[in-house]
Amino acid sequence: MLYPGFTALDFVGPYHFLGSIPGATVHLVTNQPDLRPVRSDLGLAVQPTVTMADCPADLTVIFAPGGTKGTLAAARDAATGAFMRDRASRAKYVTSVCTGSLILGVAGALKGRRATSHWSVVPLLPQFGATPERSRIVRDGNVITGAGVSAGIDFGIALVAELRGRPVAELGVLISEYAPEPPITGGTLETARPEIARLLEADLHGFVEEAKGLRVQPA
Amino acid sequence: MLYPGFTALDFVGPYHFLGSIPGATVHLVTNQPDLRPVRSDLGLAVQPTVTMADCPADLTVIFAPGGTKGTLAAARDAATGAFMRDRASRAKYVTSVCTGSLILGVAGALKGRRATSHWSVVPLLPQFGATPERSRIVRDGNVITGAGVSAGIDFGIALVAELRGRPVAELGVLISEYAPEPPITGGTLETARPEIARLLEADLHGFVEEAKGLRVQPA
Repeated sequence: MLYPGFTALDFVGPYHFLGSIPGATVHLVTNQPDLRPVRSDLGLAVQPTVTMADCPADLTVIFAPGGTKGTLAAARDAATGAFMRDRASRAKYVTSVCTGSLILGVAGALKGRRATSHWSVVPLLPQFGATPERSRIVRDGNVITGAGVSAGIDFGIALVAELRGRPVAELGVLISEYAPEPPITGGTLETARPEIARLLEADLHGFVEEAKGLRVQPA
Repeated sequence: MLYPGFTALDFVGPYHFLGSIPGATVHLVTNQPDLRPVRSDLGLAVQPTVTMADCPADLTVIFAPGGTKGTLAAARDAATGAFMRDRASRAKYVTSVCTGSLILGVAGALKGRRATSHWSVVPLLPQFGATPERSRIVRDGNVITGAGVSAGIDFGIALVAELRGRPVAELGVLISEYAPEPPITGGTLETARPEIARLLEADLHGFVEEAKGLRVQPA
């Protein structure tokens, strides 16, 4: 699911692994009325392949990437919510990375589920009837949610293993040389320097306050 | 630098971190004659922002992502090589991730440098006068090269720290929740199961054999 303001890495991490599955078809669904390019939060313009109206009814996986302002707009959009609710009702896996969980949330897809999200909005997940969990990947039934941005890579690999078995995922890991060596630590609130965490929490304050107003949309 | 057949994650990893630097301008240069979308190896169509002809002459960073067949085509293209040679001659940093090193190589940018690449083509780097090294990120003077695909994230973070200082990079790491937890190990030839490594080496054989024919293009 692409919408204006999505975070490109949230999407491209999973896309890299899922799109490499032999025989897989990836639909890049836009919530815009036509197939104009969808701009990410940093301005990357990606060509979608299908509108919500033309998207196949039955999907193996439905996936929502995150973002900040654009994600709030998508989560407030009734048509996007109705589309997500409909496709999620029949999809084999209902998934998100980062604040994409807000989009699953408003569509009612997290009700009664354990779920995770970007650390900044994990505490808001109860607004959607979810039980929040601070983990890299959380699976509850057919709902699989990932933590912030870079967790999309771990999520994508895990989902390939689930869909096609571990050897296919291992091929993806080796060709992608996924043996991370972060040159700088501090990727979690607990491991970041306190002043960095405070600065970022201040930056995200407005976004988080707005996100607190989101609720499950009426069906 | 975008070219048909680039690997989207090679590009979007660094883009995510470099593009988030306050005040940064990212030019998405296409080696096609006009601004039509550039398709990745998996078919992702990204809108470039500038042609080689219109690209600013002086760049802080020039960056080439990798791929397989498309990367060979770009590395054989004289106009692409001439563009890379010209911009690399004045850029503050000359960089690649994955097999993007082949594009730097044919442009003469790796001569006399230590460099790395995707594991499959590291042994070929001497074709371009480089000293190969199997590391996640290799820096030699102003030439910074990264290993395969996912190394672009580590590379991007390291380059942000170099360009704007460690605190800016730390903010990027925390907002991106970069605390990887690979669900499956085996991201290097040494750690992968031998049968997985053999299968992938067989898959990549044709690509590697073709890449063996690449040489530094005449200036």
